[in-house]
Amino acid sequence: MKIREIGEFGLIDKITGRLGRGDDSVVVGIGDDAAVTAYAQGHHVVTTTDMLVEGVHFRSDTIDDRSLGYKSLAVSISDIAAMGALPKHAVISLAIPVEMDVERLEDLYTGVADICEEFQTTVVGGDIVKTSGPFVISVTLLGQVEAGRALLRSGAKPGDLLFVTGTVGGSAAGLQYIQQQHSEGVVPTEVADPLLQAHQRPRPQVEAGRLLLESGVCTSLNDVSDGLASECNEIAKMSGVTLVLLAEQIPLHASVRRYAEISGQQAIDWALFGGEDYQLVGTMQPDSAEQMQALFEKNGLTCTVIGRVTDGAVGVTLQRGGQTYELKPRGYNHFG
Amino acid sequence: MKIREIGEFGLIDKITGRLGRGDDSVVVGIGDDAAVTAYAQGHHVVTTTDMLVEGVHFRSDTIDDRSLGYKSLAVSISDIAAMGALPKHAVISLAIPVEMDVERLEDLYTGVADICEEFQTTVVGGDIVKTSGPFVISVTLLGQVEAGRALLRSGAKPGDLLFVTGTVGGSAAGLQYIQQQHSEGVVPTEVADPLLQAHQRPRPQVEAGRLLLESGVCTSLNDVSDGLASECNEIAKMSGVTLVLLAEQIPLHASVRRYAEISGQQAIDWALFGGEDYQLVGTMQPDSAEQMQALFEKNGLTCTVIGRVTDGAVGVTLQRGGQTYELKPRGYNHFG
Repeated sequence: MKIREIGEFGLIDKITGRLGRGDDSVVVGIGDDAAVTAYAQGHHVVTTTDMLVEGVHFRSDTIDDRSLGYKSLAVSISDIAAMGALPKHAVISLAIPVEMDVERLEDLYTGVADICEEFQTTVVGGDIVKTSGPFVISVTLLGQVEAGRALLRSGAKPGDLLFVTGTVGGSAAGLQYIQQQHSEGVVPTEVADPLLQAHQRPRPQVEAGRLLLESGVCTSLNDVSDGLASECNEIAKMSGVTLVLLAEQIPLHASVRRYAEISGQQAIDWALFGGEDYQLVGTMQPDSAEQMQALFEKNGLTCTVIGRVTDGAVGVTLQRGGQTYELKPRGYNHFG
Repeated sequence: MKIREIGEFGLIDKITGRLGRGDDSVVVGIGDDAAVTAYAQGHHVVTTTDMLVEGVHFRSDTIDDRSLGYKSLAVSISDIAAMGALPKHAVISLAIPVEMDVERLEDLYTGVADICEEFQTTVVGGDIVKTSGPFVISVTLLGQVEAGRALLRSGAKPGDLLFVTGTVGGSAAGLQYIQQQHSEGVVPTEVADPLLQAHQRPRPQVEAGRLLLESGVCTSLNDVSDGLASECNEIAKMSGVTLVLLAEQIPLHASVRRYAEISGQQAIDWALFGGEDYQLVGTMQPDSAEQMQALFEKNGLTCTVIGRVTDGAVGVTLQRGGQTYELKPRGYNHFG
């Protein structure tokens, strides 16, 4: 079905029908000039926004629409998690090619509803417009954090330990797996499935962010959207320190290691330069590793020390196989 | 200069250099995973979002880039004003065609800085991505309002008076003036200038919205983004009432009347169906017109009674020249 058959308002009805109404914090939801939301006393509001363009950030041959809906919000929820905050309310705007099928948008919002339910987040507004160009998704997400407690990129100090949550490299490995279109049987299902999950349905680390904030020993935090190299450089720059990253300590999922062997790739490159893992990377006070790891373990999560902070020149050095390298951001520059 | 010559980060530096840092309510601004902002105790957060696409919502032959930057935020500030709220913090995302000149974006952000200064609003974040399609601007604006006091579309009651602030029809007349490309001298400057201003630099009615909220007698409110016909129908629908709109009472700027004569158009059509005036239309309790008009006058503003609320079928009737018409929304349906 084409959108012109049901009109803009018919489409909005179909979409909003999939979304929950939210809790008491939603005073006025979808349907007026603006949404009205309430935040806990003594808290600040945390706001992040991300724009995704078809053909640049996603392609329909590498991600299905329901996963795309999930991932569109996951990207922003991850930014909120990287502040140690809780996601609360989202607004979503779409620029839609006029010939797009309504079913694609219904699937997209099913994925949005999935992640909203998982993270107790409510869509409170949005805008829908047409475009002569590619499909564009713009998400703005509001969260809340205890006043004065937000975890920034700028607090790393010499002597601190560098850590990352979960495992990294899975999303980039998953994208490569999809794009390679391997013959049947080349990559076992138990290897492929976790990679697909990592690329198409990355789980933002809200709980880890909360543990890090509550621990009181996390000194800086960032989410892994552009690869460890880029994210570590951001912390180094904002904190005015050197980060020393130990390649052998970087936690890789077993499927990532297996797929690297099968495809003849370097797994570490996916972790350093791939991005879209949406884990958290940051620094914590010296001697706090055991306490933090116990806290994470108790909550079914992992936190791995992958290096340390020193007071050299601003930047990141990588130690690997007894050698030391300067690790440049190689961050994603859209216009490069 | 093309963006690839300075890169994404060079562009961000050029843009952020034009923007103010804001007041104490900005705890963490541009540069981390998310912004952190504080709102006054006892207040709720008001959020609105709008997406503008080149060729659909604006064209470079009808608006210059600095005015476009101003208007991009004016659209959202107007939604905040229509809740009786104060605008505070904005995030702006852009999908940029790779060949776009950096100078266009610098002009755009000069206009953004203009309106931010005028309305004490701070840009606290955003996203910049490339697109193979038209230029897309997505603005999300956060404001604050006293808890439980936001002015909704749903409160109109039979017996209430229908009003509009300022004058309407100027933006549509201005667009027509630009598109007609009249020969020199056909339209005097004193007629043309207010029309151009109305179309390219519409001033959102934040102060009027605050007066309406503080008055305690405003029962519903909406902003005039899609023309009076559409906006009145929204109030009628959300409140479950009939609005009776008196055509002869609708306030038109003298330039709109003059230009209607010159161009052989019906000025009232611009007011009813044109849109983009960003005035406020709403209802107030019976017998409160004098009080409200005095309040507005004291603040150098105007508020005109243009009809009343009755308890008939949900919808809007227009009384004009002794006749009564049913006034359909004719709202802007992008996909119609």
